[in-house]
Amino acid sequence: MARKAAIIGGGVIGGGWAARFLLNGWDVAVFDPDPEAPRKVGEVLANARAALPALSDGPMPAEGRLVFAGTITEAVEGAEYIQESVSERLDLKHRVFAQIQQVANTTPIGSSTSGFKPSELQQNAANPAVIFVAHPFNPVYLLPLAEVVPSPASDPGLIERVKETLREIGMFPLHVRKEIDAHIADRFLEAVWREALWLVKDGVATTEEIDEAIRMGFGLRWGQMGLFETYRVAGGEAGMKHFMAQFGPCLQWPWTKLTDVPEFTDELVDLIAGQSDAQSGAYTIRELERIRDQNLIGFLRVLKERNWGAGKVLLDHDARRRAAAFAPVVGEGPMVTARMTVLPGWIDYNGHMTESRYLFAASETSDAFLRHIGADIAYVGTGFSYYTAETHIMHAGEAKLGDALTGTVQVLAADEKRLHIFIRILRDGAPVATLEQMLLHVDMGKGKTCAAPQAILDRLLPIAQAHATLPRPEAAGRHVGQRTT
Amino acid sequence: MARKAAIIGGGVIGGGWAARFLLNGWDVAVFDPDPEAPRKVGEVLANARAALPALSDGPMPAEGRLVFAGTITEAVEGAEYIQESVSERLDLKHRVFAQIQQVANTTPIGSSTSGFKPSELQQNAANPAVIFVAHPFNPVYLLPLAEVVPSPASDPGLIERVKETLREIGMFPLHVRKEIDAHIADRFLEAVWREALWLVKDGVATTEEIDEAIRMGFGLRWGQMGLFETYRVAGGEAGMKHFMAQFGPCLQWPWTKLTDVPEFTDELVDLIAGQSDAQSGAYTIRELERIRDQNLIGFLRVLKERNWGAGKVLLDHDARRRAAAFAPVVGEGPMVTARMTVLPGWIDYNGHMTESRYLFAASETSDAFLRHIGADIAYVGTGFSYYTAETHIMHAGEAKLGDALTGTVQVLAADEKRLHIFIRILRDGAPVATLEQMLLHVDMGKGKTCAAPQAILDRLLPIAQAHATLPRPEAAGRHVGQRTT
Repeated sequence: MARKAAIIGGGVIGGGWAARFLLNGWDVAVFDPDPEAPRKVGEVLANARAALPALSDGPMPAEGRLVFAGTITEAVEGAEYIQESVSERLDLKHRVFAQIQQVANTTPIGSSTSGFKPSELQQNAANPAVIFVAHPFNPVYLLPLAEVVPSPASDPGLIERVKETLREIGMFPLHVRKEIDAHIADRFLEAVWREALWLVKDGVATTEEIDEAIRMGFGLRWGQMGLFETYRVAGGEAGMKHFMAQFGPCLQWPWTKLTDVPEFTDELVDLIAGQSDAQSGAYTIRELERIRDQNLIGFLRVLKERNWGAGKVLLDHDARRRAAAFAPVVGEGPMVTARMTVLPGWIDYNGHMTESRYLFAASETSDAFLRHIGADIAYVGTGFSYYTAETHIMHAGEAKLGDALTGTVQVLAADEKRLHIFIRILRDGAPVATLEQMLLHVDMGKGKTCAAPQAILDRLLPIAQAHATLPRPEAAGRHVGQRTT
Repeated sequence: MARKAAIIGGGVIGGGWAARFLLNGWDVAVFDPDPEAPRKVGEVLANARAALPALSDGPMPAEGRLVFAGTITEAVEGAEYIQESVSERLDLKHRVFAQIQQVANTTPIGSSTSGFKPSELQQNAANPAVIFVAHPFNPVYLLPLAEVVPSPASDPGLIERVKETLREIGMFPLHVRKEIDAHIADRFLEAVWREALWLVKDGVATTEEIDEAIRMGFGLRWGQMGLFETYRVAGGEAGMKHFMAQFGPCLQWPWTKLTDVPEFTDELVDLIAGQSDAQSGAYTIRELERIRDQNLIGFLRVLKERNWGAGKVLLDHDARRRAAAFAPVVGEGPMVTARMTVLPGWIDYNGHMTESRYLFAASETSDAFLRHIGADIAYVGTGFSYYTAETHIMHAGEAKLGDALTGTVQVLAADEKRLHIFIRILRDGAPVATLEQMLLHVDMGKGKTCAAPQAILDRLLPIAQAHATLPRPEAAGRHVGQRTT
């Protein structure tokens, strides 16, 4: 049975939490007295469905069931995890916790609060030990960060279990060891926000100029390394001490002396709203959300390819999902070696899978086969490899976004040097493309074909022998433009 | 003759400027009395050569000539642009400007200063009007931002010409209209740095936890939208005013009250250096530089694909380079329709072009041919398109990083519905791969082949007729595994 999470407060943040749980296979009950909540959560969920699966390289679990509960009691019943994302009013949060703990006083309750400390949240609670901060970042369904802040009254074992729950839904729980106003990230955001408001108010820069100053420069650095690692690199071989010696003192110059926030007069609000309209008004908020999500997917996939930063979180999450690891299936028919999902980056302007991605899918399929017979990356490291000499592709259908594809290999012929295979890229058991390939075993140093070693042949030749009894595919041996018989 | 830039100060920043100019075809003279300067600039240049071309989708211009000048006078002679990147000491900068202006007092002089205002730089200068701030961000060869800050004494026409020069080397000049300590971006960096030092000093977070708090969350947002646009989206349909009303006041809470920087005691320096070693010490600075550059290339290419933020700058820069636009060459032989450079993202773990990229290169080639005969994106928008039914690929060589490839199309046969073509992907005139393809003209709505319209046939059939006299490629009509005759 699916696990259940309760989401109290169904705005953009609560909706983002709901989406993360649902798309990771949890059932979710949302409570929010706002009659607009189902629409709002629905919009976030639609965005999340279009975005989160694009980060995964394995099939997604079946989506959980979403219900809107009429009461807090109904929402939290049977929930294994409760997340509170109501407005930033301490009295309101206290009332929500009290209602929850009337019926569920041992269930973990995370709060999305930006500013309150866990000890403040815990005041007067029936069971303060289970209340903590779990502060996410919008869009919650894409950004991995959740600041997890316990107080001294928190149950350390529960906090560890909560971190594990957050990892299970693909997040990066950052354990903040000392509670402090605004945790960590929002302290930076506040400091920057304050500087930015003064720059706009004093006419030094517009909202657009400030955004350019961030996203054309240090924003790109921070998305992958953060502050200290960036400065460590800037310090050069001499290291962080050198950087501090060189740049530390000059950062003491009084460039920014202000801690006041400018008063939110109508003039200032109008000035900023007007500049923001001039900057971004050409897009609706929905359009901006989609642009933002596509950009973030791109960044996150770049980092995933490099196993770096937030990309490491994605790879770890894939690995968790692959717990029931997928191994090539050796059976009666062609060997199933790959399962893939058509990702947004594979789609062309027609909405179909880009032509070259069929060959990509085939490469995933044949690479898995080669790994199976022992010609894996380690083997390539010894200076030998199978190279593709020739390929024939037949298109039989069109794969579309989100399609689940299976790749199979049938060995048509194999000897010491040659490996003649037939690949099927299947959707619902029917081919969308078939590929016939001739691979040659190559001594990469000499740039010449050579015999594969016995260890590989011992794995390959029995498969070839077994496949010899399979019906020969009609498309094998075809040349381009040949009449269909 | 190549244009010349003079770079005064050959550290990481000066070296980055030198690399940007050189790789964009300018000659560069560097002056730096440090005997280590050639090694340091050489290291930055090596990084830049491995990184900057990866952002370009056209061939790079021939690299300019780099010389190390013995004097400032020699360095600036004949230079069209001068960039100063010496240490952050105002007296030193004044001496450099004085020496420059003894021999070149009308040439623009940009300063890389992080903190000084242009009016401070201009003090006592022979010609203050040509001195301004051009503040870049490390790595200068990848990040587009240059804050251009004039003072009231600056020559507005010269500032406009300087901005154009910066665009020519692929940068984004951000014109800061009012001079202010630390310009714009470094005010934010200082505010965050100050907060971060206190968090470390007070034991709230380590350097690594702070970096994670940035790069797992808002750092990813800022790399593509910045501060205000991010908040505009967060505010939802109600817009920026709503966001300000909702979140403005709570940002006035005194989360961050500190403007002092903690004293740089040995203890604090050791604490930070030690935490940084624990966080990043597994990598050398060179390794971190390469990781950073590859991450940034990835981010920038994601944005380029989406024509967004810094990616827009890259596309504009490509378009400038393509001034002598490339049009398909219609001549005696097969039609040349595409020129490409093998990019880092096209390379597999063997260091060779990934198999599916050969088909990608062929698609680029055939798409250009289809555009030429009128089957372009606008045509696809009407509900008709050419679909590939079948492809045969022969591999004849291995393309490697940076190889310049040419794609040609030979029409083997064409009628109303069918288009049978032979594509060659050439390097130095010799094929690395050839592809035979059968394309069918399709009514996308009906999912059926249909006759192409007369307008397309009028362009296609004369080419087919002309190509009928060309020798038939040996690989045409081959099936996989066929013996070579």
